Amino acid sequence: MQLPELIRDIGRRAREASRPLSNLTTETKNAILRAMADELLVREAAILEANVADLAGAREHGLAPAAIDRLTLTPERLRKIAADVRHVAELPDPVNEVLAEWTRPNGIRISKVRKPIGVIGIIYESRPNVTCDAAVLCIKTGNAVILRGGSESLRSNLAIAEALQTGGARAGLPADAIQLIPVTDREAVKLLAQADEFLDVIVPRGGKSLIEAVVSSARMPVIKHYDGVCHIYVDAAADVEMATRILINGKCQRPGVCNALECLLIHRDIAEKFLTAAVPELAAHGVELRADEEAFHQLSTLNYQLLRRATVEDYRTEYLALILSVKIVPDLAAAIDHIERHGSHHSDAIVTTDETVAEKFLNEVDSATVYWNASTRFTDGGEFGFGAEIGISTDKLHARGPMALPELTTYRYLIRGEGQIRA
Amino acid sequence: MQLPELIRDIGRRAREASRPLSNLTTETKNAILRAMADELLVREAAILEANVADLAGAREHGLAPAAIDRLTLTPERLRKIAADVRHVAELPDPVNEVLAEWTRPNGIRISKVRKPIGVIGIIYESRPNVTCDAAVLCIKTGNAVILRGGSESLRSNLAIAEALQTGGARAGLPADAIQLIPVTDREAVKLLAQADEFLDVIVPRGGKSLIEAVVSSARMPVIKHYDGVCHIYVDAAADVEMATRILINGKCQRPGVCNALECLLIHRDIAEKFLTAAVPELAAHGVELRADEEAFHQLSTLNYQLLRRATVEDYRTEYLALILSVKIVPDLAAAIDHIERHGSHHSDAIVTTDETVAEKFLNEVDSATVYWNASTRFTDGGEFGFGAEIGISTDKLHARGPMALPELTTYRYLIRGEGQIRA
Repeated sequence: MQLPELIRDIGRRAREASRPLSNLTTETKNAILRAMADELLVREAAILEANVADLAGAREHGLAPAAIDRLTLTPERLRKIAADVRHVAELPDPVNEVLAEWTRPNGIRISKVRKPIGVIGIIYESRPNVTCDAAVLCIKTGNAVILRGGSESLRSNLAIAEALQTGGARAGLPADAIQLIPVTDREAVKLLAQADEFLDVIVPRGGKSLIEAVVSSARMPVIKHYDGVCHIYVDAAADVEMATRILINGKCQRPGVCNALECLLIHRDIAEKFLTAAVPELAAHGVELRADEEAFHQLSTLNYQLLRRATVEDYRTEYLALILSVKIVPDLAAAIDHIERHGSHHSDAIVTTDETVAEKFLNEVDSATVYWNASTRFTDGGEFGFGAEIGISTDKLHARGPMALPELTTYRYLIRGEGQIRA
Repeated sequence: MQLPELIRDIGRRAREASRPLSNLTTETKNAILRAMADELLVREAAILEANVADLAGAREHGLAPAAIDRLTLTPERLRKIAADVRHVAELPDPVNEVLAEWTRPNGIRISKVRKPIGVIGIIYESRPNVTCDAAVLCIKTGNAVILRGGSESLRSNLAIAEALQTGGARAGLPADAIQLIPVTDREAVKLLAQADEFLDVIVPRGGKSLIEAVVSSARMPVIKHYDGVCHIYVDAAADVEMATRILINGKCQRPGVCNALECLLIHRDIAEKFLTAAVPELAAHGVELRADEEAFHQLSTLNYQLLRRATVEDYRTEYLALILSVKIVPDLAAAIDHIERHGSHHSDAIVTTDETVAEKFLNEVDSATVYWNASTRFTDGGEFGFGAEIGISTDKLHARGPMALPELTTYRYLIRGEGQIRA
């Protein structure tokens, strides 16, 4: 089959599967998930063998050690993946939740009820466990799913998807409810993004060029999982010890994730005091600083070694590394203005003991998650208590911030009457 | 200015306006709306004069009498438009509504709070009152708006937008919060749809070619207000008198709107009885029927005059006229299958006295609004009790069905801590 026909065929099958799937009971869906978890373990040898082949290919292509580690499956990691599937079976099913219900003066009763979206496309570049996570969350919410992972993990992804399909089928999963596109060509992404007859939404998780390929082609709604250019603003009234702790946690605990800090803004009145306190910690963690003129001067005086001057480009960059932009601002308004102009509206924090200042920051910073005296690293479905997440949406519509099971649903209005007509 | 620069300039201004606008209090926004209503009446002469010029142009272009009527403004209609603005000022403001609030075991407090979306683009082809309705609903929810209406009403739209800007400014509306694109070229729509740096969402209301121009170009979320191929299914256990009443209301009360019926499905066991009852009513209203083979035979026997055979294309057509497709089905499953395959997922109804059948229909028909024993004509923000609506979304994400003030908002997570960091 040629690629365009293949994508249409996959889309058509997913659409067909979505109807019976949307009407499964919670009990059936949970039984399906448990059967999937069983099958992942039954097929341990085959999945690990596929992974070994992926790893050999990855080494041949010179993948970085960190990427090799993310790609690697072990018996222990596979058991963790299966346990996560069982965990999703335990979570509440959002489908059929009544969101609102009211009766109109003419007697018609209106119910707004959560329902599956239909067919969801998920495009990702990362670890093979995403194949399982994404599929399982879609099935839990009664949606058919089309997956398209990265080329380096294709064999592992196929082996995992096959286990989910086979295990699920035993417990009543409709055929074609989970499909993995076996072509890792970028063209497949574009074709999928144009197939709005079959897909209700497409969720790209990955780097700039992947997101751009989806956004420029897509005819259906897109929920982007894009970058986090996250800020911490240390206000004049900040507790310096607390600000240092939140800064180091946000920048250094796990620099490669989207909720890590990329920019430090400091109120001028506390800059010297704060930098004096923070510099030993930053140096101990080996953080490179890219500073504006004023901060550069102060950091030079403090004899900070890993120091460069910041460019405008730095303020828009998600480093995903131990690098931090630093800027001294005259007031709260300048801090908010910087975040609004240069940030990516993901997660931004203020540290201050002044409630008025904090509430103004919370009110005016237009980001998915805005923090007062807490680390931006909490932007995460698990940390929010959502039980599981499909990712962190950087879009404003339908889903914003941590995207969990309810965000994989839509709603319908169901109206019950006794023959009412419109006058 | 060239068109691409003009569109970018409008976008940039809207983005700048959106920040102060998003932080206005409810009281200020309502004062702005009342000042707008006042100014519409102050400028009555200028607005009606612009409308006279539009009407002259429309007549020159041979616009149909119904379209001329929709375009026409009168002192009375303008008073109605101003009264509608005052009505929106009275509605509750959804901004800052706390949707959920909880505390995590580590003590951070999470609030999910409604906030303005930012900048909304609205593209429409219809009556000049939409210029006012759309702008007012966006301002009420703290959003900047970019309007692009049809060419035949350009002068009326400009006059109305100017009244809203001038009146609003007197009460504190930021400059550029309401902008109307003075170019009705289709190219302007495409350029706007690509300006995702400045627009957060685009809402096209109109015909197929307008929607297609937006969908194929758009880089930001689109909420389509598209067609309604709405069905009524008369079940074997239907009350024939009730079914006839709902059918005639749905098809004939106002055939030119999206929630009007386009297709009648009848269970075989009740077909003869139902058609015998409905035929005099359908004939009295002059409804042309396009029937499948079985219905054609029965309607011929009943000597129905305005009768043709239905084609597959008929089942996908939004007639917006006194034409109705008719099909006899063997059972409920066939009715649901027809609706799922041929419908537009807008509004569909079942008439039956059998609750089990009704609930199955409500559960399995994947439309924005699904009715049991009531007319599809109730799919309307006013009829739902929403106070005002921006339109009827035919999309599944963010807004589905009648789209009112809450659907013009997004949300943020605001998190308050005491220095918590992630372990």
